[in-house]
Amino acid sequence: MRPELGCCYYPEHWPEERWSVDAQMMAESGLSWVRIGEFAWSRLEPTPGDYQWEWLDRAIATLADAGLKIVLGTPTATPPRWMQKRYPDMFAVDRDGKARGFGSRRHYCFSHQGYRIACAEIVEKLAQRYAAHPAIQAWQTDNEYGCHDTVRSYSQSALTQFRIWLKARYQSIDQLNKAWGTVFWSMEYSSFDEIELPNLTVTEAAPCHELDFKRFSSDEVVSFNRLQTDILRRYTAASLIHNYMGRIVEFDHFAVGADLDVASWDAYPLGFLEDRSDYGEEWRARFVRQGDPDFQAFHHDLYRAVGRGRWWVMEQQPGPVNWAPFNPAPLDGMVRLWSLEAIAHGAEVVSYFRWRQLPFAQEQHHAGLLTPDGRAAQGLREAQQTAADIEALGTLEPAVAVVAILFDYESAWAWQTQPQGASFDYFRLVFEQYRALRRLGLSIDIVSPAQLGEQHYKLLLVPGLMSIDDARLERIEAAADVVLLGPRSGSRTEHFHIDLNQPQGFSASVECVESLRSSAGYAVGDGRLEHWFEHCNADEASVSLTSDSGAPVLLRSGSKYYLCGWPNEQLAEQILTALLELVGVPTKSLPGGLRCRDTATHRFWFNYDNRNLEYGDKRLNPAEVYIETL
Amino acid sequence: MRPELGCCYYPEHWPEERWSVDAQMMAESGLSWVRIGEFAWSRLEPTPGDYQWEWLDRAIATLADAGLKIVLGTPTATPPRWMQKRYPDMFAVDRDGKARGFGSRRHYCFSHQGYRIACAEIVEKLAQRYAAHPAIQAWQTDNEYGCHDTVRSYSQSALTQFRIWLKARYQSIDQLNKAWGTVFWSMEYSSFDEIELPNLTVTEAAPCHELDFKRFSSDEVVSFNRLQTDILRRYTAASLIHNYMGRIVEFDHFAVGADLDVASWDAYPLGFLEDRSDYGEEWRARFVRQGDPDFQAFHHDLYRAVGRGRWWVMEQQPGPVNWAPFNPAPLDGMVRLWSLEAIAHGAEVVSYFRWRQLPFAQEQHHAGLLTPDGRAAQGLREAQQTAADIEALGTLEPAVAVVAILFDYESAWAWQTQPQGASFDYFRLVFEQYRALRRLGLSIDIVSPAQLGEQHYKLLLVPGLMSIDDARLERIEAAADVVLLGPRSGSRTEHFHIDLNQPQGFSASVECVESLRSSAGYAVGDGRLEHWFEHCNADEASVSLTSDSGAPVLLRSGSKYYLCGWPNEQLAEQILTALLELVGVPTKSLPGGLRCRDTATHRFWFNYDNRNLEYGDKRLNPAEVYIETL
Amino acid sequence: MRPELGCCYYPEHWPEERWSVDAQMMAESGLSWVRIGEFAWSRLEPTPGDYQWEWLDRAIATLADAGLKIVLGTPTATPPRWMQKRYPDMFAVDRDGKARGFGSRRHYCFSHQGYRIACAEIVEKLAQRYAAHPAIQAWQTDNEYGCHDTVRSYSQSALTQFRIWLKARYQSIDQLNKAWGTVFWSMEYSSFDEIELPNLTVTEAAPCHELDFKRFSSDEVVSFNRLQTDILRRYTAASLIHNYMGRIVEFDHFAVGADLDVASWDAYPLGFLEDRSDYGEEWRARFVRQGDPDFQAFHHDLYRAVGRGRWWVMEQQPGPVNWAPFNPAPLDGMVRLWSLEAIAHGAEVVSYFRWRQLPFAQEQHHAGLLTPDGRAAQGLREAQQTAADIEALGTLEPAVAVVAILFDYESAWAWQTQPQGASFDYFRLVFEQYRALRRLGLSIDIVSPAQLGEQHYKLLLVPGLMSIDDARLERIEAAADVVLLGPRSGSRTEHFHIDLNQPQGFSASVECVESLRSSAGYAVGDGRLEHWFEHCNADEASVSLTSDSGAPVLLRSGSKYYLCGWPNEQLAEQILTALLELVGVPTKSLPGGLRCRDTATHRFWFNYDNRNLEYGDKRLNPAEVYIETL
Repeated sequence: MRPELGCCYYPEHWPEERWSVDAQMMAESGLSWVRIGEFAWSRLEPTPGDYQWEWLDRAIATLADAGLKIVLGTPTATPPRWMQKRYPDMFAVDRDGKARGFGSRRHYCFSHQGYRIACAEIVEKLAQRYAAHPAIQAWQTDNEYGCHDTVRSYSQSALTQFRIWLKARYQSIDQLNKAWGTVFWSMEYSSFDEIELPNLTVTEAAPCHELDFKRFSSDEVVSFNRLQTDILRRYTAASLIHNYMGRIVEFDHFAVGADLDVASWDAYPLGFLEDRSDYGEEWRARFVRQGDPDFQAFHHDLYRAVGRGRWWVMEQQPGPVNWAPFNPAPLDGMVRLWSLEAIAHGAEVVSYFRWRQLPFAQEQHHAGLLTPDGRAAQGLREAQQTAADIEALGTLEPAVAVVAILFDYESAWAWQTQPQGASFDYFRLVFEQYRALRRLGLSIDIVSPAQLGEQHYKLLLVPGLMSIDDARLERIEAAADVVLLGPRSGSRTEHFHIDLNQPQGFSASVECVESLRSSAGYAVGDGRLEHWFEHCNADEASVSLTSDSGAPVLLRSGSKYYLCGWPNEQLAEQILTALLELVGVPTKSLPGGLRCRDTATHRFWFNYDNRNLEYGDKRLNPAEVYIETL
Repeated sequence: MRPELGCCYYPEHWPEERWSVDAQMMAESGLSWVRIGEFAWSRLEPTPGDYQWEWLDRAIATLADAGLKIVLGTPTATPPRWMQKRYPDMFAVDRDGKARGFGSRRHYCFSHQGYRIACAEIVEKLAQRYAAHPAIQAWQTDNEYGCHDTVRSYSQSALTQFRIWLKARYQSIDQLNKAWGTVFWSMEYSSFDEIELPNLTVTEAAPCHELDFKRFSSDEVVSFNRLQTDILRRYTAASLIHNYMGRIVEFDHFAVGADLDVASWDAYPLGFLEDRSDYGEEWRARFVRQGDPDFQAFHHDLYRAVGRGRWWVMEQQPGPVNWAPFNPAPLDGMVRLWSLEAIAHGAEVVSYFRWRQLPFAQEQHHAGLLTPDGRAAQGLREAQQTAADIEALGTLEPAVAVVAILFDYESAWAWQTQPQGASFDYFRLVFEQYRALRRLGLSIDIVSPAQLGEQHYKLLLVPGLMSIDDARLERIEAAADVVLLGPRSGSRTEHFHIDLNQPQGFSASVECVESLRSSAGYAVGDGRLEHWFEHCNADEASVSLTSDSGAPVLLRSGSKYYLCGWPNEQLAEQILTALLELVGVPTKSLPGGLRCRDTATHRFWFNYDNRNLEYGDKRLNPAEVYIETL
Repeated sequence: MRPELGCCYYPEHWPEERWSVDAQMMAESGLSWVRIGEFAWSRLEPTPGDYQWEWLDRAIATLADAGLKIVLGTPTATPPRWMQKRYPDMFAVDRDGKARGFGSRRHYCFSHQGYRIACAEIVEKLAQRYAAHPAIQAWQTDNEYGCHDTVRSYSQSALTQFRIWLKARYQSIDQLNKAWGTVFWSMEYSSFDEIELPNLTVTEAAPCHELDFKRFSSDEVVSFNRLQTDILRRYTAASLIHNYMGRIVEFDHFAVGADLDVASWDAYPLGFLEDRSDYGEEWRARFVRQGDPDFQAFHHDLYRAVGRGRWWVMEQQPGPVNWAPFNPAPLDGMVRLWSLEAIAHGAEVVSYFRWRQLPFAQEQHHAGLLTPDGRAAQGLREAQQTAADIEALGTLEPAVAVVAILFDYESAWAWQTQPQGASFDYFRLVFEQYRALRRLGLSIDIVSPAQLGEQHYKLLLVPGLMSIDDARLERIEAAADVVLLGPRSGSRTEHFHIDLNQPQGFSASVECVESLRSSAGYAVGDGRLEHWFEHCNADEASVSLTSDSGAPVLLRSGSKYYLCGWPNEQLAEQILTALLELVGVPTKSLPGGLRCRDTATHRFWFNYDNRNLEYGDKRLNPAEVYIETL
């Protein structure tokens, strides 16, 4: 595989006479892909049915003439103003009951059946016109599903569809009452028509009501996307792609991905550090111009799984962005580091957003590879350097990882629904176990529940997985030499009841669970348990580790281990080191923000830190990438 | 009096074949009471008028057969789904104007006249069927009035009733205009129909408008409850009880209590520490698994007053709960400590919530005495130990307290309406004076304004009492050898105007008042005044204490003292020690979280702290209870 | 000029028999002005068309008889309850879509055409009756425009007017689409009727849409005020005044001021410190009873500019207020200090709010010059002292300032719309440069963009000015010997696009901009850049200062300087000291909270600090004022 570079371009934003200059510059800078079209609906169909293809024809021709391959986006994330006239109720409604209106983007409710028809129409028209064009080598559906909290809508459309969805799921209202436990507070229903959305209740709604609404909302994204892929498949064999975001868990990316050929994501390391980090001032100050040292890698590995091996970075941050609370500039070298890191994780394409900074509208302070007046910005210089790096690397093949961690969207919804502790967040739980593996120098696979067993690992981590029935347990056990479950894994049934058999597959039992403010954690040697602890009776399971106060912390049953709480960094590393030794996987002890990642042929070293770091005979400056041939 | 134990049980949640097993276990564990039925409306009347009594008949029979006494709850906190069809507008509306809907609990507006009729019907039906049953020895009305911020509703029903209430109160609109001071900003009304609820104004509404709405809202709870007690009284002579919550001040618990025989409350020491404490991380960390050392005692004493001597703990936390931001497990021994503390304060019954942890619905992570799979949890072991302790204690009689503190709900509403400083909270003010007395080793009575004079005390504290007219002042003075008023006591008239005569009964005057960020407090020797300070001209009053800068801090006029500010812990203890010495009440200086409480025959010592504490020759481990015979 | 004192009085709040006593006391205390009437609409017109003038006639007569001059307020900030019956939709709607109702004040939408008619009627009636009265020597329009966040309304009335406003501004929808950059996310409009208000969008609306709505909202205040001044001018030659507030930037005070004769503001130093300060606990603790040492001066200078030299303090805090989070009492002497400081800045009148503390309604804890029971409060004693001070001073003439700073409301809206960093606030940016000049001992002018060139300065600061076209740049350059622009000055065009020519007038360019969390600032010697930094290519501009890392911090082009970031206190003083030295303006280095201000004849020294301060041979206690004759 030979990685490629690309960029995102909006011909409709620039004078037509500039198009060929831009296309030429892209090609000369080493970019081979360009994504276009995903926000252009109002130019493609200014009034209903009045399609204006000519400008896009010319834009495509110009880009193609420069030798660029094109990703064409469906424009459904930004319906034009006339759509509101056709469907005044097309908007999503927020949890407080306020409808969100026209004037920005993503202003639609996934459940609105009329808008779905309109989407099908524009996608079909686009496909009819452009599917055969040889330069159109990939299609992107919509844009960033879930961005701006747009998955869950409390609209009338959503309610109607939710009732249909529930009826299909439960068949009878009695089954639903049982699953939801509505006897609890006299919440029993006598028909599906009585069910409301779970917002605006006096206190929390029935948790399975909430969870089902989250499942339904995710399914709506899946079917909305499938509506488009079904149409596109009829016209093209080109790759179908969606560009996911970072740390959005409100819909099942694997399920959407099942209808796509390639997963991609929009990688904004600095924006995400400011906007979506769990860590405080000290951490943010240290990584302010580099980004979290594991956040990108985690998503690279996640989307490699979502794309079943095929994945891109569709939008790579090329400089400061505009949308986070603070928007600093990357350290010189970081744009190249991020690009090479994606490549080390197996990205087919790294595409920068955007080609040129736009001097008007919402994102005018979002950097591009070019400045607003068309000069090369730092991003372009680093993209060019990256192109040269790729050239020097030659063909890359991914390495086969020996450790994996399971990620499951339903579990994220489960613990959003009943976190039990203010600091319990599923993404964070998984991410911190992932980080611990990374600090030990490992290259990691992320797998979905459905992917269990596709590959055998030395060690598999399964933190916080909501449900584990017997079949799933069997598949987990078969997936690796050693499995580490917990905390909270397998603690609920499919209907979100407490599973009376937890921890699954151990002859042990959970006496009670605690959620913990940070000052209330438990010491375990030099480490600590925080956020969460399960008091377990070990019964017939053996106890591999106890807290200083003598409570079981790590249970063992054959090659399965169960972690009874949420370990801090130190404790996580201690436990994982021991398990990795057990399965014969060598570990490193990487200093600070140093990370490494292997391909089949190369080992990449990345210094994410704000100071020089040494490891063995290597010494890396901040933002430095060091590539070893294996 | 011989204290008893009990628990809360939901036969409708469990298979009928389990009922007798549970009943047997309860009885064998030393429990003699069981509360049932308060959330079972949808099972008692699945569709309008279709009453299903048989299951409840059998459940009652099963429990009675095991020798258990039963508290039967009216199910009005959880109207079934069909009620919404009958009364679509039955829901409370929040301050932002959003109606809260079906799907959890407490989903009704106290002012909805239709729902009141429906409540009367179900209560009457229940009374008709069960009042004569010998095992039904008490009734509980509704459940936790005010929980989830449900007292104040901004609905159309509330508006209609508020206008009626105002008309009754003021007779003429001119009287209202005068009371509210509507001339201030041209807010004058020409008829009661012009009056709106005080939400959604541009800036604050007229304070007496706000205060009257709070008074009205409290009265609505009182009359809602009375509707039920009036019906029940016609059928039964059993004790009528309501289960109040902790630190809810939005309705007058004394006024509701006047229609009841017994007050009870739901004591969740760890939930309340996390959810309702004024204190920060250090305090929370120290008491995280024990609860605030004075919070339970305060409510025990409060509800003893509300119940005119007769009170219960209806729901005692038996392990981790599910509803606070963090939900840690109690230290081993704390469930017993909490139970014995209630008993030391005179509880007739301590009833645990709930018998068995329920593996589904909203509270599935709320511990029970049994685990979800039916094994004994730590709570049961401690309940059994408590039963043995009670057995060993023999008959207990309450001691007669020599110090008292006045608590007044109207004052809480007053200072919610015009706190004048962000940190001024009436509950906290009273609670901190109460805590100071407790740290001095005293057993304390809480009294309502109406109870003044029922008993004579050596010392009576009256902090922050909104209104003191001449008659009330006389009753205050007569109630104790020495009275300590202030800060802010008697500062407003009944119509919430500044009282020009404050401080009441002193030949002194208030020049101006200050609310203070903590860094702006005034030093008074080793102590400090915080939150609040009144600059007083002592005039003919004598000054017992001044600030370091020379301002009067404590005024004296005969046996009355007036405290001009909010003392911190040190200053409060200093002042109270001096006053107690004056009236010949000996004090102790208890270390840390050690507390003691006397009955007529025993002195109970409780170590709430997270470390061993010594006092004299006593040395108590954390969670230890030490009982001395007097 | 001989400064005068006054107070605010509400005859409608007090018994008529008290009026003459009050009037007599005012006059004897050295007050010569009294403001009345601005909240009295319900007494002037209790029912529609039923005008009740007699009581006001008598009140005016009583005050006039005591020799007092009267400011008569139009009562339009508090329409009576009957207005709601006439215009049920007259209320402003907040950003969340909630209409704000009757029951406090400022309950109207500026865009409601019906309410405007009603305002015109009452103003005309008042003018007809009182314009000729010799004691009525000034008129106040409405009261505190913008207080309680009342400028921007998202009502249907506002939408209708906004569309009209846009049509007038852009003429064609194509022009609007171009200006707003609606092509960006398919936000294009085909007619003005399609445009909505910019609230309730999914993510941010087009920034020029937002900015235009802010411009429109400001214009609505201007035309609302002009409606009144146009009427009053037809009847009177007396001064027309409005009382502005502190740190309200939501409408253009200069534009409103253009229709007035005198600007005035309501100076609440302690309320503003608690309510509107950017600084944390340490700063607030230090100045808690004095107020920010530069906040009052800034507004004095601002309103001197708004009033084109003529300005008052209409409401001077005389003691604790009631509306801030905390409401401490001023240090003894501060009321006098504040009064004399206003006079040193050129105030014609300092008028205290309010004459007597009112014991009822919303502001009953707002101090007056008299206590609620009519005794002299500390405020009165200090007002009397101030009157004596004024007597001793004789005639005062303002000094001519040699340094100025530009303040522009549109820029405030611009950076509210796209702050790009959470801590970027225009007012704060300007205020901190102002403070740096003050700490260097200077007397400063504030100028509006329109006032550029009316006076020539040695040094002019132009921080954060949104737009600078060639003509404006020329006027800036001509306005002073040396000009310091930046950061962010001239960075946007009039349509709020990035200006490709920035920094304006330098042969340099901006490569990219960063917004910075405080820990991510750049060291510049002993100082730092915080909040904001622009990476500039100096090109042909010379670089006067670089950061420790070598980036340009201060560019120079002839007598123009450009500051590339937001300097902290230390760096601001260092740069300004150097520039002032360059233009030959001597500076002082004032310790702590010491400040000074020159008139043509006197130098006033003010100690705002909480400790004694020395400068040269001067030693001032806290709250002390020292006056030197020049």
